[in-house]
Amino acid sequence: MPQVSERTIGRLSLYRRLLDEMRAGGVMYAYSHQLAAMAAVSAAQVRRDLMVIGYSGSPSRGYDVWQLSQSIGVFLDAPVKQGIALAGLGNLGRAILSYFTGRRPNLAIVASFDNDARKVNRFIHGCPCYPSDQMGRIVEEMGIQTAIIAVPAGSAQAVADQLVRAGVKSMVNFAPTPLRVPPHVYVEETDITTTLEKVAYFARSGRLMEDSK
Amino acid sequence: MPQVSERTIGRLSLYRRLLDEMRAGGVMYAYSHQLAAMAAVSAAQVRRDLMVIGYSGSPSRGYDVWQLSQSIGVFLDAPVKQGIALAGLGNLGRAILSYFTGRRPNLAIVASFDNDARKVNRFIHGCPCYPSDQMGRIVEEMGIQTAIIAVPAGSAQAVADQLVRAGVKSMVNFAPTPLRVPPHVYVEETDITTTLEKVAYFARSGRLMEDSK
Repeated sequence: MPQVSERTIGRLSLYRRLLDEMRAGGVMYAYSHQLAAMAAVSAAQVRRDLMVIGYSGSPSRGYDVWQLSQSIGVFLDAPVKQGIALAGLGNLGRAILSYFTGRRPNLAIVASFDNDARKVNRFIHGCPCYPSDQMGRIVEEMGIQTAIIAVPAGSAQAVADQLVRAGVKSMVNFAPTPLRVPPHVYVEETDITTTLEKVAYFARSGRLMEDSK
Repeated sequence: MPQVSERTIGRLSLYRRLLDEMRAGGVMYAYSHQLAAMAAVSAAQVRRDLMVIGYSGSPSRGYDVWQLSQSIGVFLDAPVKQGIALAGLGNLGRAILSYFTGRRPNLAIVASFDNDARKVNRFIHGCPCYPSDQMGRIVEEMGIQTAIIAVPAGSAQAVADQLVRAGVKSMVNFAPTPLRVPPHVYVEETDITTTLEKVAYFARSGRLMEDSK
């Protein structure tokens, strides 16, 4: 599989969502500049990104919205079902589960883990919840390679260590503490408190110029 | 107020959380290299960031954990209470509200907005929920300058437009569609579907080299 940058992957995912929205609104064709305006990037950027996936549209009437969405899917989506493990079913974990369920046919949260006796051994939003102490074994047996960490800060590192030992290769970390992982593991840090503090700061200090970011 | 970059603000917020965790664990002093290791940055970076806030620690026994956390707070926190508006009280909105409530003394979600008759004119996690059609008026009257967008993609732009007209200067957007805002408004895009797709992709294709990001 070609090595494509994080930013390109993020934009392709965004283009697909925008295309799917257009299609839901009855739009059948779109020019690169239209897609670019919706995605807040340049039309040249859109064309470069679509070259990465080997797609070339019809220049006279624009891209076929459905076909392009499918082509992005072939590139981006798991060729077979890819399962995600969710560690922690507190408020945030449950929101993530409910929000993501059914969004992508080949990408699903297939196992969740918690310590709470009222949650374990039940289905929550259609996903089984297992006791945390069985996480390593279950993740390994199911061959899960991607995980979401939604546990408190104090246990996030221990949970990440267990997941890495069980074969997980990429994670999203929602716990408010950065994770230390081996170099072959990819971690995306997503911390809501930091994000809110940052955004609140910019409301007081005024918006930064683009080039001083 | 000095113009400090997004990344610096993000790191300062992170240092404070780590310092508060250390303090909760009984640690009173920390060297820059210890803080650096926990934050996954270099010790030189920590020292540069602390110079931004005008802090210089005791070199022999390290930084005073409590004092440094307070100093970061003076720099980062709103000098007076700063209110945040939350548009949308679905699963994600409620999770954000419950997660963030009480985290920061001077930063709080003070008003939330939804269309659901079962939610409006009630307190949810201690925060009043108002009808969406009163959002502009209430945000303006309360002088709120920061907002969280947790509404469906289809209404996110209209909600953002209303908030900007009401005086909002910075936003976090959780809706899966990018927002168009005037140049003086700061938007942080946080889309869980994109994040999960990206992370899942990297589990299949292998981790990127740091320099090809």
